[in-house]
Order: sequence, then C-alpha cells, then structure tokens
Amino acid sequence: MPPRLVLHEDPVSGNCYKIRLTAAHVDVPLERRAYDILKGETRTSAFLGEVDAGGRIPVLQIGDDFLPESNAACVYLAHGSALIPADRFDHADMLRWMFWEQYSHEPNVATLRFWRRYVGEGALSEAQAALLPAKKAAGRAALAQMDAHLSRADWMAAGRFTLADIALYAYTHVAGEGGFDLAAYPNVQRWLDRVAAQPGHVLFE
Amino acid sequence: MPPRLVLHEDPVSGNCYKIRLTAAHVDVPLERRAYDILKGETRTSAFLGEVDAGGRIPVLQIGDDFLPESNAACVYLAHGSALIPADRFDHADMLRWMFWEQYSHEPNVATLRFWRRYVGEGALSEAQAALLPAKKAAGRAALAQMDAHLSRADWMAAGRFTLADIALYAYTHVAGEGGFDLAAYPNVQRWLDRVAAQPGHVLFE
Repeated sequence: MPPRLVLHEDPVSGNCYKIRLTAAHVDVPLERRAYDILKGETRTSAFLGEVDAGGRIPVLQIGDDFLPESNAACVYLAHGSALIPADRFDHADMLRWMFWEQYSHEPNVATLRFWRRYVGEGALSEAQAALLPAKKAAGRAALAQMDAHLSRADWMAAGRFTLADIALYAYTHVAGEGGFDLAAYPNVQRWLDRVAAQPGHVLFE
Repeated sequence: MPPRLVLHEDPVSGNCYKIRLTAAHVDVPLERRAYDILKGETRTSAFLGEVDAGGRIPVLQIGDDFLPESNAACVYLAHGSALIPADRFDHADMLRWMFWEQYSHEPNVATLRFWRRYVGEGALSEAQAALLPAKKAAGRAALAQMDAHLSRADWMAAGRFTLADIALYAYTHVAGEGGFDLAAYPNVQRWLDRVAAQPGHVLFE
C-alpha cells in the first residue's frame, strides 16, 4: 500500500501549485492541509517542530516523513514517470532549469507577485521597497532568458514536457500579477499555452 | 569513448569547487578553463553566446553541450555512483537539501564571503550594503538549521555521504570568510571534519 501523501501548503503559493500540478499529471491523489502564510501559520511551534524547522511551505508529507522544497517534492511524485528523463544529460538539464528557477526566477518573479498582490506595495518594509528595482530587473532578465531559450526549443529541457516546465510554469503564468508584461515575451506565451494544453493539466486556483 | 568534460569556472567560487569535489569522488578528470568574475570575463559576448546566456559560472561542458547550475553538474557527474541514493525518498531528500542550499544558504553565506573577501565591504554599492543585516541573519539561520539537523544525523540525507553533503560543504567550510563564527555550530564543525575525511576528498584552493 503506498504511503499517505499530505501536501502542507498555502493554496495561493505557486511553489505549492507545482506539486499539485505534478500530482495531477501522474494521477496521484494528495490530501491538502492549508496554512495562511500572512497569518504566521507556518511559524507556530507545532509547524516548526513537526512539519518544517525552516517555517516554510510547501512540505510534502510521505507517511511519517516530511519533504520540504517544492522541486524535490515534484521529483518524489514523478519518480519513474515520463516527466523525468532517463537520459543522463537530459535529466541533469531538467534539474539545471529547476535549480535556475529557484535561484534566478522565483526570488524575483514570485516575490514581486507576493509583495504586490498579497502584501501590497504600500505595506512593504523600507528594506523590501529598496529591493524593488533590482528584483524587477532580475525578473525581467529571467523572463528574457526563458524567452530566448524558447525561441529555439518548444520545452525547457529534453525536447519534451518535463518537471522543468512544471516548475517554471507555476510562477511564470502569473508573472503579470507581479507587474511583469508577458506580452514582451512571445515565446514564453506560446510555451505557457503548450503547458496548459497538456493532458492532465489543472488550474492554479 | 566518454565525452570531453570542461569545467568553465572561477577557481575561487565554491559553486565551482562542488563540481571539482564531485569529480574527484567519482574519479573523473575535468579540464579546467578559468574566468575572473571580478574582471567581467563571464560577461563577454563570447561567453554569453557560447557558454551561458546568463553570464554565470560554473558551466560544465560535456562534449558540445553546456550545463550551467553547479548542483545539476554534480548530478551529471555522479550519475550511477554511490553519491546519489537510489531509494525514492532518499533521492528526493538529497535534492531537497541541494535546492535548500541554493535558495537559503548560498545567497547569504556565499554572498557575504564574496562581498567581504573579494569585493571588500567598503566597495559595496549602497544597495548591497543595505542587504548586509538581512543576509547575515539569514546566513546564521541557515547554519543553525544545519546544526540542528546534524545534531540528529551524521549526514545531510540518506544516512550517508551524498551530493547533499558536497553541495553544502563548499560554502559552509569557508563561512568564516563571510564573517560567520563556525564555533557556534559544533555539529556543523564535526560534519565538516567527516566530509573532509572521506576518501577522494580534495581541497578548495
């Protein structure tokens, strides 16, 4: 019998959506347990002690084990499926874009969405407000790098739909909520349509 | 015949050291091509056009293919070796710490080392200087999270030495150069000694 799978999440987080999207593509049911980040519900002693010492969501609970980091949870769920290339280079190249997503894309594209839509630009701390120009520029650079890549390829890695596409779709398709103009990235827009047209696709909210 | 492997690197970068350390553990020779980040050698049109459109090192060249992202390069090199657990959960848990390294550790612990040792605190831009307190706090939180984890386990994942240890060793063992006091993290210090005692270990510089 497979272990019970519980997604500890905030439903508005794109990092959590990645995991739901992966689960839908491999047709694995997830229980869902919601926490409101803005109300500090991932900073309680119960959450820090049981779910994640770092106080962050998503965490995928697998039986009695807890697995933080959205992209690691996607790899767990997609184990043995067509979403993960078996070829040595393609596999590493898929991970390359997933590491890039967490380092160069999410801290800019996702953070600006969170600040604009959920915190409100007027409610940002002085330190956060000071970061806005650099994060806008880095987010645009990340989208431009994706657009250039997708001018030469239909998918992020391996010539087909993989976890790299799922990882990058989550925050790219709502980049407009962070103030980014997706019309400036036509290859990205066509790729977003390709991802959403995949059998098994589920919507964010 | 295996493809030619060329590491495009800056020798002082811990992200590049990870790849050399992985290659040493799996006994694979790498050609090395050095670039000086501080002199802008990864921002030339030749580098951007041929090696990495993002202008970053390390990049592992595999024959005619280029693989950016240090942790993806480690996965490529360690393919099929004992450094990557085959067990489904252990494999994902190894990746969990590698994603965590890039998101929660490297942008703080490595960036402060770079700023202090290579740029110089007096030469930081106003925007960089404004980030110092937050990066110091986040770096300490990352080291404290590792220390708590290593109070219950000898290794980061899977109960044995894996790529998660290599990825986190690279910048943790030189965290003192970023102004962090490793004496405050005794479990981390004992783990650093365990990693350095592994057969096949090579020094950073």
